Amino acid sequence: MELAVTGGLLVTMDDSRGGLGIVEDGTVGIGGGEIVAVGSGGDVDVSDADRVIDGSGRAVLPGFVNAHMHTTHTLVRGGAQDVPEIEWMNGALGPITRAMTPEDEVVGSRLGVCEALLSGVTTFGEYTSHVGRLVEEVYRPLGARVAATETINEVGEEREDLGPHDPYPFDRGKGEADLERAHALFERYQSDQLVTPIYGPQALDMISPGLLEEIAEGATERDASIHMHVAQGERERLQIEARYGAGESTVSALADLGLLDDRLIAVHCHGATPDERARLAAAGVRYIGCPSSIAGIDGITPPVSEFLGHGTDVGIGTDQAPGPGGHAFLRELRTASLLAKTDLSDPTALPAWEALRVGTVGGARALGLEDEVGTIEVGKRADLALFDLDRLSVAPTVDRPLHTAIPNLLYAGGGNAVESVVVDGEFVVEDGSVVGVEERGLVAEATERAERVFAEAEGDWRAAGSSLVTASDGGWL
Amino acid sequence: MELAVTGGLLVTMDDSRGGLGIVEDGTVGIGGGEIVAVGSGGDVDVSDADRVIDGSGRAVLPGFVNAHMHTTHTLVRGGAQDVPEIEWMNGALGPITRAMTPEDEVVGSRLGVCEALLSGVTTFGEYTSHVGRLVEEVYRPLGARVAATETINEVGEEREDLGPHDPYPFDRGKGEADLERAHALFERYQSDQLVTPIYGPQALDMISPGLLEEIAEGATERDASIHMHVAQGERERLQIEARYGAGESTVSALADLGLLDDRLIAVHCHGATPDERARLAAAGVRYIGCPSSIAGIDGITPPVSEFLGHGTDVGIGTDQAPGPGGHAFLRELRTASLLAKTDLSDPTALPAWEALRVGTVGGARALGLEDEVGTIEVGKRADLALFDLDRLSVAPTVDRPLHTAIPNLLYAGGGNAVESVVVDGEFVVEDGSVVGVEERGLVAEATERAERVFAEAEGDWRAAGSSLVTASDGGWL
Repeated sequence: MELAVTGGLLVTMDDSRGGLGIVEDGTVGIGGGEIVAVGSGGDVDVSDADRVIDGSGRAVLPGFVNAHMHTTHTLVRGGAQDVPEIEWMNGALGPITRAMTPEDEVVGSRLGVCEALLSGVTTFGEYTSHVGRLVEEVYRPLGARVAATETINEVGEEREDLGPHDPYPFDRGKGEADLERAHALFERYQSDQLVTPIYGPQALDMISPGLLEEIAEGATERDASIHMHVAQGERERLQIEARYGAGESTVSALADLGLLDDRLIAVHCHGATPDERARLAAAGVRYIGCPSSIAGIDGITPPVSEFLGHGTDVGIGTDQAPGPGGHAFLRELRTASLLAKTDLSDPTALPAWEALRVGTVGGARALGLEDEVGTIEVGKRADLALFDLDRLSVAPTVDRPLHTAIPNLLYAGGGNAVESVVVDGEFVVEDGSVVGVEERGLVAEATERAERVFAEAEGDWRAAGSSLVTASDGGWL
Repeated sequence: MELAVTGGLLVTMDDSRGGLGIVEDGTVGIGGGEIVAVGSGGDVDVSDADRVIDGSGRAVLPGFVNAHMHTTHTLVRGGAQDVPEIEWMNGALGPITRAMTPEDEVVGSRLGVCEALLSGVTTFGEYTSHVGRLVEEVYRPLGARVAATETINEVGEEREDLGPHDPYPFDRGKGEADLERAHALFERYQSDQLVTPIYGPQALDMISPGLLEEIAEGATERDASIHMHVAQGERERLQIEARYGAGESTVSALADLGLLDDRLIAVHCHGATPDERARLAAAGVRYIGCPSSIAGIDGITPPVSEFLGHGTDVGIGTDQAPGPGGHAFLRELRTASLLAKTDLSDPTALPAWEALRVGTVGGARALGLEDEVGTIEVGKRADLALFDLDRLSVAPTVDRPLHTAIPNLLYAGGGNAVESVVVDGEFVVEDGSVVGVEERGLVAEATERAERVFAEAEGDWRAAGSSLVTASDGGWL
């Protein structure tokens, strides 16, 4: 045994233990990157452990799964929020991100991943173009687990000049190049414990049926998932009608294309009808909701509770920092819960225990990683987050007659309760700091790059004329 | 000049400067607990300052005003959430809080106030019975500014046995004793710079017209505010109909009683109709919304944006920790914004800049303290919060073409961005710690007390039979 954590409040999420699988005075033993023992008090012999961590006063959870993120955008945090939905991409985020270089993207990603690690995230649902670069330059150096989705689309750069009803012109060559990069990930990482490649056809309005068919073949051949933005709003709806005909929707078209099955991970889905969402669920499609992002960009509560009600495997993601906010995961789960309550006018919706399940085992299932992570069980990879229950923001906690640590972490916790984070048996966060990262240096580099990006983008940004320009000129920003 | 903060990004909220009154490379000079200079770069001579703080890389805001809090309940954090509204008080919180002693309340309050201070709050809208005890034992030792509202009601302890349509029996003697304590606060703190007493008739269903009239007389005589929970839900509505007649509501009855004027601070108001809320606004009533609390307890978004639209003075409060969560104020403002967006299906609702205004100058106006705090202006008391913009969760920030610090603090910040907090010219938080408080010791004492309270309450709590009992027995909590 290489590592043991003793005396903690284990929240294992192991169904066989009942409820959340809570184990008091719990011990987790780790060897070879795997969980080799789970028990209470003296049940587990830790005498041969190379290192023993005293977990008393700590809650030990499976590391969180932040199931859908575009971390590169962290570099332009604050660049796009509080604008009408239709302005968000074309008027605010677009002009700024176009000034980013690949190196800016890497630094932005590193910042976002560190932020998420410090909130207890161990598995990242990264979704970006050239994702292999982030795997090599961000995720592997930090030791984080990544479900690496390569973005595939056939849309060129010039679609800003089109009207909303004109279908984007497709560039099949671009799409094929994207797909080649996706295929290559599988060759490169086939034996990598920490990297799981996923195909990422960006959205149905951005890809042709022919290329989708190729993707589906690749996914079947490699037993891989297909991670796709589905029914994300009005722009997409108009595109689908223009391309597939009046009365067609993303869900109906995906069904016709034979893509509705348990290989598909559908993100967002707020533009689908309840009947369509039931159809996705019935087909075994997995779901990821991004509450802060979709509330911020669209003023909509994503249908997290609705999919949970269908028995769907549901995960939560922070999406991207300018939409709005950041990657603090407990805050995201809290937001998910409060938005569910107000959306359904029901204070019992998405209670603390269910939100924590969604953030761990739910996310693992949504990404197809449930055999590896998401619970604290013997045989799973050793991904853990340790929370200090004696922080002012979480305290006091009691174990009788209920474990208030569960609601306190969810509703009160915040990121600064995280003390240590372990991925595959290795510490990636220790004493509240990311291992191997000099935070001030990272922030300084990110700030320097952000200043250049915003400066270069200013002309385009002003020309795009979002309401943020007016607000800035008025001294509100 | 006793203290100067130089080189910071000042967000003064001073209307005369336009927008948020942003001053780059700003200096604030403080003397005698007051702001004596505000300027940019070399405009302010700080050579005679006893102490100069380098504010570069910091945002300097007016200290936040957490306008409505019941901090004693922080001791039983985690004891009441995720239950139906009707269970929340009688089935969950009530049985637990009844086991609290006055000393437990003081320790709970201390914990909650420290938590709020660490999120940049300088002014507390405390609302409790025997509030003078908290003023002496919590607020004055910590150096925080408090608008101290004494709870006044005529309801005895035994109302749990009544049906919802039976009017609570009133005990005028109890109400008079409460009122006497309120009057006494004015004598005691009339020359106290940090304490502003307020009358707190708890809610219209808990107090008689006769006693309300006495309160109104006292408030007029002392030029004081009346801070009242207004239209907070179904239980209150039934009580008002039983007492004032069918068709009567809290707002109509308050109007008949002559209480709708600018002396009244109305909290919650989610049970009022839009017409009634417009009537409150037209009468000059001030408003405080508690987004997390009301979302958590009732599944409702409080009408913060609606009152802002009426031009009302609006503040935000965290209410109490079990409802659900804690007192981290930037998180509360973020929650207010995201809930407003989803409630109105409008991503432009309650933008970052407006939320920060509500949390500072808005709250000050709502509590009637706008001549003293809420902005950074010469002549105001020196209440400031300094945020480190180089924290991972806020970075990167840029100043061109917009100050991303504004959205970044609001949407991404979180409590741990607070570096220092100053009240009346004195540091109450320094280097991220509450001055004069040994946090681990406070947490240990709170935990010991919470364990005793929950243990003593367990029998009543089980007998009350909320859904939390079932969840706990099922291993979910």
